[in-house]
Amino acid sequence: MTLKTERTRVKRGNNRATYDREQINAILDSVHFCHIGYLRAGLPFVTPTLQWRDGDYVYWHGSSASSTIRGGRGLPVCVTVATMDGLVLARSAFNHSVNYRAVMLLGDAEPVVDPDAKATALKTMVDILYPGRWDGLRPMTATEIKATGVLRLKITEASCKIRTGGPMDDEADSILPIWAGEIPLQTRLLDPIPDPRNPVGMEAPAHLADIVLGRTAT
Amino acid sequence: MTLKTERTRVKRGNNRATYDREQINAILDSVHFCHIGYLRAGLPFVTPTLQWRDGDYVYWHGSSASSTIRGGRGLPVCVTVATMDGLVLARSAFNHSVNYRAVMLLGDAEPVVDPDAKATALKTMVDILYPGRWDGLRPMTATEIKATGVLRLKITEASCKIRTGGPMDDEADSILPIWAGEIPLQTRLLDPIPDPRNPVGMEAPAHLADIVLGRTAT
Repeated sequence: MTLKTERTRVKRGNNRATYDREQINAILDSVHFCHIGYLRAGLPFVTPTLQWRDGDYVYWHGSSASSTIRGGRGLPVCVTVATMDGLVLARSAFNHSVNYRAVMLLGDAEPVVDPDAKATALKTMVDILYPGRWDGLRPMTATEIKATGVLRLKITEASCKIRTGGPMDDEADSILPIWAGEIPLQTRLLDPIPDPRNPVGMEAPAHLADIVLGRTAT
Repeated sequence: MTLKTERTRVKRGNNRATYDREQINAILDSVHFCHIGYLRAGLPFVTPTLQWRDGDYVYWHGSSASSTIRGGRGLPVCVTVATMDGLVLARSAFNHSVNYRAVMLLGDAEPVVDPDAKATALKTMVDILYPGRWDGLRPMTATEIKATGVLRLKITEASCKIRTGGPMDDEADSILPIWAGEIPLQTRLLDPIPDPRNPVGMEAPAHLADIVLGRTAT
């Protein structure tokens, strides 16, 4: 299945491009920090938020009253999910690069309006970002569900660009005595800082080790 | 100096908002991965790239022929610079959050057309992202300068949102026996992987320790 359309056809650096659904899903499922592009008064705005995928849709949420959520309702959006995986140092400034994975999804955002569907989507969010955490939490209330806006975008039009590996210097440069190479980037979770109001002596739960959000995929 | 306008006034979560130029500069100078929002055929597109600041301008670059560079030329853009600094785990799903720093800049992008100005901008990019590296590189060529498009945006309209610290649970929830807390995120550079064509025995240069790009600001 390809998600390539004229709008998502990668014109520059198309040797780095793919439209493969499996590869796109893999990025959507490991990089949750994303940027939503939308229009306000005809001008482009870009808001960072978190996305999670459930089947053929990516979802994001926010305050019901926020302009990002209101602005995204039924309107054209671009959901860009991108992460830097490394720095690429070449022998010329021109050939420096970064290694990255980036997905761009296009389409019209749909609001999730039914309260049960919204509740399900928010539980799915927690299950994906913080596996094992949901059952131990204070249950959601109807007021909280009402105060939360959830949008989704069907994955139908997308592109994906991935760069990996070391520098691609000009042939004549590669013999110059200049250090070139790749420096991988890693994002990790540091030691948890317990809230001062936790019960005395309470240990951090085992499910923290399974957190997906923000951590470099391995 | 405030960069607040009606368009950049933060409506939701405005207790997290600032328009202070010093704080905005600090984020622009430590987080270089950014997302450019622009219009193509009236629809929003969001492209990840790198930004660097020089005085009152943020700059970004790309292939002269890329649609991001062509699309940004003289057209309205939104430059969003955002990073996640930590996860905030509360006692309810609703009060989960992330710690972050985010700047949104609005305005019309200007192309840097003069070759000397472009060359200066690209040297500044290397000096900011890879301090100490420029002088050891094979010099830029006129062809490379021509093939590179540089855009800039004057910092006149901006907003900034920052969240730090632990969870803000509802008062009634804070006595529940549920682990809550903050988990800081850190992005770091792993050991460099030398290019196989480096001279035999060449050590990684000392300036790698000064790389700003991609590393969590300390």
